[in-house]
Amino acid sequence: MIGEDDLVRRIRAATARERDGVVVGIGDDCAVLATTPDARLIATTDLLVEDIHFRRRYAEPADVGWKALAVNISDIASKGARSRWALVALACPPSITPDEIDAFYEGMLALARDHGVAVVGGDTSSSQAGWFVNVTLLGEAARPVLRSTARPGDVVAVTGTLGRSAAGLAVLERDHVPAGVDAETLAEMTAAHLRPRPRAAEGRWLGAADGVTAMMDLSDGLATDLPRLCVESGVGAVVRIDAVPIADGTRRVAAAVDRDALAWATGGGEDYELLVACAADAFPRVADGLARATGTTLTRVGDVERGAGVRFVDGRGRAVEVARGFEHFVAERRA
Amino acid sequence: MIGEDDLVRRIRAATARERDGVVVGIGDDCAVLATTPDARLIATTDLLVEDIHFRRRYAEPADVGWKALAVNISDIASKGARSRWALVALACPPSITPDEIDAFYEGMLALARDHGVAVVGGDTSSSQAGWFVNVTLLGEAARPVLRSTARPGDVVAVTGTLGRSAAGLAVLERDHVPAGVDAETLAEMTAAHLRPRPRAAEGRWLGAADGVTAMMDLSDGLATDLPRLCVESGVGAVVRIDAVPIADGTRRVAAAVDRDALAWATGGGEDYELLVACAADAFPRVADGLARATGTTLTRVGDVERGAGVRFVDGRGRAVEVARGFEHFVAERRA
Repeated sequence: MIGEDDLVRRIRAATARERDGVVVGIGDDCAVLATTPDARLIATTDLLVEDIHFRRRYAEPADVGWKALAVNISDIASKGARSRWALVALACPPSITPDEIDAFYEGMLALARDHGVAVVGGDTSSSQAGWFVNVTLLGEAARPVLRSTARPGDVVAVTGTLGRSAAGLAVLERDHVPAGVDAETLAEMTAAHLRPRPRAAEGRWLGAADGVTAMMDLSDGLATDLPRLCVESGVGAVVRIDAVPIADGTRRVAAAVDRDALAWATGGGEDYELLVACAADAFPRVADGLARATGTTLTRVGDVERGAGVRFVDGRGRAVEVARGFEHFVAERRA
Repeated sequence: MIGEDDLVRRIRAATARERDGVVVGIGDDCAVLATTPDARLIATTDLLVEDIHFRRRYAEPADVGWKALAVNISDIASKGARSRWALVALACPPSITPDEIDAFYEGMLALARDHGVAVVGGDTSSSQAGWFVNVTLLGEAARPVLRSTARPGDVVAVTGTLGRSAAGLAVLERDHVPAGVDAETLAEMTAAHLRPRPRAAEGRWLGAADGVTAMMDLSDGLATDLPRLCVESGVGAVVRIDAVPIADGTRRVAAAVDRDALAWATGGGEDYELLVACAADAFPRVADGLARATGTTLTRVGDVERGAGVRFVDGRGRAVEVARGFEHFVAERRA
């Protein structure tokens, strides 16, 4: 059990090295920050709740710290923006040890350092049941890319592959390691779930690329997030399920645990890949450029249409039902 | 039980009227904000946890919403800054009703409107036990006032009176209304606890006043917060307990429930008054000016000294022990 002032000292010691744009960091009532002239300020907040978003049984404190920041970096990246400053609120049971708190911040700060993010403020409290972590992240962009500006005729594309996080979760939730999947694949899938790597460089590159018209990140799955982009843009879309990129490892895990890899890809959520709308004539150049700049694949999965709603179709153009993403608030994943 | 998209629509509808500096508000991955050239960005975050910081037994959802924003406005005000944009994370049990959520946001938005704050982002989740509310508030100031810049010889002063929130809490925690205290006083004290009025106008006036050297808000009580200001400033301080301003109503409640009003004033916390260091020769002018501009009293309670530590003395200059503020993290108030 540690006091609040002691905790502030720990956090402050851990974050003191990050000074970029930080006039006053942790230790005063507020952080004082120097923004970039002519840039827009970009702000987002995400809440991670124990046994809703993660389980302490397999998520170490360092994983929780990492992921709480990662999901916010993903949001900022999806606007083509640069992540700069984080404020962190943590409530956890009084039984928490100083080592666990240190590990939580170390996990967060490892990712923060990779992305040039300074932790500039926070708050702590006891919790009577479980961990609650809330990170607010501030970034900057000269010209943010919104989710509301896709146009009929645009290509719908995604970075990387989908379903890895759900595959990792399926492995973590089981008592036994599934047979028939190599250790390297299992490690990759569980890491995708526990320590997602936000597409920060990709988001900034795409945000500056001619032809990209709209962007968001895939936190709740393609079948939930693409309809959101469409509603905001006042358009519809069609997705060809055969085109949805799924890693071989994801398919192997799905086969081993008798689940559907496509359902993970459309409904699993938490992949933190980028969902991009791009002018059709610009798409080949954008995809090539992104691959060259970042090594990350951009895959066309469908097209933006006039109208409303998102249709998923098979290779023959027939409508298919796909698994939708979960909604945390109705607590479908609580077990 | 309501879904996340529905909740976003509710919040969005409730906040759509506030547009000052908001390029993109709720509905995209991030808010996009237009900052003021040459101003510093001021950022703070505060967590309110059920049964740690409030009890649903007497705190209505609207009170919780109000207070979660109020404590942050107080932090921003204590830097002499203007509150502008809020991001709100709410976790609550699945049993919550749409009416309760509406009431929570209505309470918050009533205060937000008073202070020109736009709610620009948020996140929601289930909770397995109790409410968790985290508000991050962004403000701006041309020249923020810090807590680290008090100087030996400065006056130590506080706005308003201290101990009202603790008096209100003492009333709320009792099953019976204490005898011998009029209803108006009881209502004032409980409102001070449930719906604190942050010293926003006072903070901005003091932040711009010549002679004010340092400022912070009183969230944990004078006996906890003044040492924090002193540590950050590298100074000590002496406080004359006879000078600590305590409202007559606070004394009446203390007498009625057989508690010590001074202990509430020094250790009760949550008054959200401002703690000010001010050059001694400027103090009379600053106090007069504040009273004229805002109607709020600024009371000299002591002096900044060389050295370290805070001494509390009685009318004869003898050292006295006073009640220290609670620390939430060690959960002294959980029952």
